[in-house]
Amino acid sequence: MAQRSSPEPVTPTATRLVWHAVGDRLTRRPDQLAVEEPLEIRLGQRGPADAMAPDPQHTPRTRGTQVLTVTMRTPGHDFELATGFLLGEGVISQPKDLRAVRYCTDLGLDGDQRYNVVTVDLAPDAFRRLMAEGGVTSRLVATSSSCGVCGSASIEAIAARFATTVPVDDPGTPAPAFSFRDVVGWPDLLRKVQAGFSATGGLHAAGLLTSDNRLLVAREDIGRHNAVDKVIGWGVQQAIAGASAFPFTGLGLVVSGRTSFEIVQKAIGAGIRLVVSVSAASSLAARLADEQGVTLVGFVRNGAGTVYTRPDRLAP
Amino acid sequence: MAQRSSPEPVTPTATRLVWHAVGDRLTRRPDQLAVEEPLEIRLGQRGPADAMAPDPQHTPRTRGTQVLTVTMRTPGHDFELATGFLLGEGVISQPKDLRAVRYCTDLGLDGDQRYNVVTVDLAPDAFRRLMAEGGVTSRLVATSSSCGVCGSASIEAIAARFATTVPVDDPGTPAPAFSFRDVVGWPDLLRKVQAGFSATGGLHAAGLLTSDNRLLVAREDIGRHNAVDKVIGWGVQQAIAGASAFPFTGLGLVVSGRTSFEIVQKAIGAGIRLVVSVSAASSLAARLADEQGVTLVGFVRNGAGTVYTRPDRLAP
Repeated sequence: MAQRSSPEPVTPTATRLVWHAVGDRLTRRPDQLAVEEPLEIRLGQRGPADAMAPDPQHTPRTRGTQVLTVTMRTPGHDFELATGFLLGEGVISQPKDLRAVRYCTDLGLDGDQRYNVVTVDLAPDAFRRLMAEGGVTSRLVATSSSCGVCGSASIEAIAARFATTVPVDDPGTPAPAFSFRDVVGWPDLLRKVQAGFSATGGLHAAGLLTSDNRLLVAREDIGRHNAVDKVIGWGVQQAIAGASAFPFTGLGLVVSGRTSFEIVQKAIGAGIRLVVSVSAASSLAARLADEQGVTLVGFVRNGAGTVYTRPDRLAP
Repeated sequence: MAQRSSPEPVTPTATRLVWHAVGDRLTRRPDQLAVEEPLEIRLGQRGPADAMAPDPQHTPRTRGTQVLTVTMRTPGHDFELATGFLLGEGVISQPKDLRAVRYCTDLGLDGDQRYNVVTVDLAPDAFRRLMAEGGVTSRLVATSSSCGVCGSASIEAIAARFATTVPVDDPGTPAPAFSFRDVVGWPDLLRKVQAGFSATGGLHAAGLLTSDNRLLVAREDIGRHNAVDKVIGWGVQQAIAGASAFPFTGLGLVVSGRTSFEIVQKAIGAGIRLVVSVSAASSLAARLADEQGVTLVGFVRNGAGTVYTRPDRLAP
């Protein structure tokens, strides 16, 4: 599959007339709002022969596709969002599990309906694996076989899901040396490219960085999780195009908000060993990072930060 | 069903040893983290005769219950969370649809596993209605019948789902007069009771307020949506106990974060006509508020704010 970005028009912000209110005075004025629209992600399958078939931007709905999820997101980079989401959920575990990503549009649709359904065609192996594990529905609800749903079980499930992606590295092994001095500057590097946030105050962002402090990619979205999916999905598309390696063990992830379990989960799915945020990490995020050997840094502000796990990966 | 809070021990924060890093200095110190744990919400049914049966805190797993969802949340007020979640999803539409809420624990479990599964027993009518609509799975994925998933369709779905809760009031009708002067103080009122946020910096909060500026209830959670579910669920439990009316047309909702489509959706499900936040509202949140006659206020800071919709409901 050729690497390419989603072809849709990117409209992350929308203008709306609002009232600015101070005391008892209301002033009518235009304001910029972060756009939120549903995105339906569907799964299909496509064999090696099909992989070379023409893949126009607008293909009719494929029979046999299954709805995986509907997520509220900010339009733009939808193919990357779908790709990153599938990796984080373990539906794909490597770039070659993916055959094609495409919009599914009916010819009669227009406007905001046109780009709100994305179908991801899996390689037959990946599709069979998913079905063997109980199909699409099993991914949506982590049904527990007993009453024992708990944080430890969640951590074990992630460990099992991504066991093949990156082995937990030995604590004594020399790790990619990120500089702490660089890392505390990442939120600022990210902030500089958050055009949507500057306009609306309502968009989160995520970015991927190298150990020599280059911001490779940044994406914005109304959902923190979606922004992370978009940058990881970008990386997978790069790997498919042969422009980068997978997994992304040499890269760091920076996020604009808090770090939850699911953010760390997504990083692990992509082999990322360093997660940095401007805000708090949850108890379960720290436990998962601990067990999977991920360096987790939070509250990065004014040259300082809180290192929750694995400080050995950070050089001064 | 008797009104009561969840009986579980409330542990919204956890202590963890972290490193405080400034420049090249690492200092080991204890830190308070927001607790994140999975909660599995199950549905069961219970008839009028059963409603009076003993309902011990720990009942064995009921055969025939169905898993509705697993959500990551901060433990505490789980019954309220489950109740509010079901209302927002339209699984219940009024207090009498609910028969009982209980923990489902195996006797062999201990520690954090003990309180991570909640079963909600529906009244037979509500259970039948859910099944007639396609059952539990239909609630998890809003499958579209065509490629036409879009914001407008989402708004129409909410309008249809909650048509019986509160009719959209006529723009000319005198509305409950909240004072804008009061409303701009709501985030501060909420902030004063956010003990978990003060300790961790990692918890969102939501509160319900009256038009005479009383904060009735406030709840914290790692998820903004969960905090809203908890205060609305509290209200439903109050209504079941006969301590308040349902729907909550006379109350306002304040949230600590951004206002998305789903936050407004939850307010509408409870009949709340005023939603206030310290931060941005999304495009779709504003459109939904518009169409459903909800007053939406954002960026409330320093006595000022942005009114997205229906300023007529706010007196100076």
